[in-house]
Amino acid sequence: MASIKEVADIAGVAVGTVSRVINNHPSVKQETREKVLAAIKEINYVPNEVARNFKMQKSMMIALLLPTIRHPFFSELAYYIEDELDRHDYKLILCNSKGKPEKEIYYFDILNQNKVAGIVAITYNDIEHSVVKDIPLVSIDRHFKDEISCVTSDNYNGGRIALQELHKAGVRHPAYLGYIATSIRGEVDLRKVGFMDAAKELGLPQADYEIPDLDEDLLNPHLDQILTAAQYKEVDGVFVNGDMLAARYIKRAREHGIHVPEDVKVVGYDGIQKDDLFYPFLSTIVQPVEEMARTAVRLLIQKVDGVELHKDLYRLPVTFRKGGTT
Amino acid sequence: MASIKEVADIAGVAVGTVSRVINNHPSVKQETREKVLAAIKEINYVPNEVARNFKMQKSMMIALLLPTIRHPFFSELAYYIEDELDRHDYKLILCNSKGKPEKEIYYFDILNQNKVAGIVAITYNDIEHSVVKDIPLVSIDRHFKDEISCVTSDNYNGGRIALQELHKAGVRHPAYLGYIATSIRGEVDLRKVGFMDAAKELGLPQADYEIPDLDEDLLNPHLDQILTAAQYKEVDGVFVNGDMLAARYIKRAREHGIHVPEDVKVVGYDGIQKDDLFYPFLSTIVQPVEEMARTAVRLLIQKVDGVELHKDLYRLPVTFRKGGTT
Repeated sequence: MASIKEVADIAGVAVGTVSRVINNHPSVKQETREKVLAAIKEINYVPNEVARNFKMQKSMMIALLLPTIRHPFFSELAYYIEDELDRHDYKLILCNSKGKPEKEIYYFDILNQNKVAGIVAITYNDIEHSVVKDIPLVSIDRHFKDEISCVTSDNYNGGRIALQELHKAGVRHPAYLGYIATSIRGEVDLRKVGFMDAAKELGLPQADYEIPDLDEDLLNPHLDQILTAAQYKEVDGVFVNGDMLAARYIKRAREHGIHVPEDVKVVGYDGIQKDDLFYPFLSTIVQPVEEMARTAVRLLIQKVDGVELHKDLYRLPVTFRKGGTT
Repeated sequence: MASIKEVADIAGVAVGTVSRVINNHPSVKQETREKVLAAIKEINYVPNEVARNFKMQKSMMIALLLPTIRHPFFSELAYYIEDELDRHDYKLILCNSKGKPEKEIYYFDILNQNKVAGIVAITYNDIEHSVVKDIPLVSIDRHFKDEISCVTSDNYNGGRIALQELHKAGVRHPAYLGYIATSIRGEVDLRKVGFMDAAKELGLPQADYEIPDLDEDLLNPHLDQILTAAQYKEVDGVFVNGDMLAARYIKRAREHGIHVPEDVKVVGYDGIQKDDLFYPFLSTIVQPVEEMARTAVRLLIQKVDGVELHKDLYRLPVTFRKGGTT
């Protein structure tokens, strides 16, 4: 009786490769496919149903790609993604991928091999070319070129609200502070656009400070440059694009004798502080993290179940939470 | 040619069940096994090698069971566990399991089915009966009855150091504050034992406050009871078993007009604040989270590779970090 092992031996490939040829998986090279088909013909092999059954077995794993689980925004997102997946009997694979596009590309590759059913990704790595349409992928914040669903918060309006709240708090010389804008950060940078538009509408000057995305101590010289600049003396309110950066800014400002909120008001973005256990309790734009997480998962499950993919942009509303910095 | 499908039909079971019988998996009921073996004999079925190959394929997944990824200690642990696993080509499944023992039991069950290669668990659920020896499991903090390796920090000495540092800061009426001790929390409660021993050795009184592990607002009445107790007036220093609880205590104390460090010194435990971005910057006992994570993973991989299991207790040293609360 001809066996799949014999086919593999004759073709000079692994048993798994023979199985993939039988099941028409796209990942097999044409040259390899021809070798296998020739071997099958040669010994008149009849594929066994078991092989097909195992391959067809649906994976119940979803991979979550995010920069780092250590950031409170991402750990909260991961928490609700895992919870929503669990309600649908899916399991979550966690991948920290900041600066490691090869890790993300691995997961896109194994989508084809049915080792994961789908992917939720929040990524700022340059992986455009790995993302093809019709894959079960939902992106958070990032707009991929192909028709991939994206879940994000209402970043443009978040920026507008930040300006309005600073203005309400008496600010007349507002400034924006955030990491350098790139096309990859598109959604996140809409916050600045909203902020600047709202400032223009109120006839306010708009100071704009962009700094590189660096770790802690490497960031300080850049903050110092801003805090000591002549132009900065007029600034009485800052919208900082991200709560962690806002806290870092406030701390560095204090070292320059600048006090928040007495000298300068601050509004952050994210809402990572759940309560006022720690000071400063940031006034901030709160992202609806739980809703983003559960929406992303429900969308992904629909795609895994075969609902047609099209580029949907799901914008979820943000809210302002007043803390001690305005 | 007899096929596995025919065997399944005759026995009245699924193809997967037939395969498990062929591969001698322990999860099949005796009654079912007999039905399948009878069907195999009846049609003279010869098992196909492919079925065996698929089952024998080694899983490269490790499951991490922790109460919640939202707590900074656990998210930092998860980060380093994922990173160390990645270095060894393993992938990480994340499971939030606080109060949900059924989720953890699921993962113990699937260990047998080769869907995960091993488990790292930090759990305070009552799952003793599900943990059998000789499974590829490494526990963090929790001592299971059977011979399971455990990685933990030097909790007893951590408690001693906490007392010594409070004493150095001038404290003469120290108190312990933590969640109610249970056998499940054994390692964590060693901190109190160390604290009390050190206090006795210095001839100091030892006030002892234990409260239930509740969420935020439900905790406040218990903190209020402590803060207003007659005995508490003498207390000039508190070792709080956990940084989050320490912050909550400090906040509630402030509402009672008690200021830290002016009126009462505080030492926490964990080291969840990575820098002094937020106040109060706790004086605390820092757990070597990265080392705990990487040690746990390396131990687990050894077990997965067949190194004999025995109860090893790996205690990693802690350090005191002075902040603004002593």
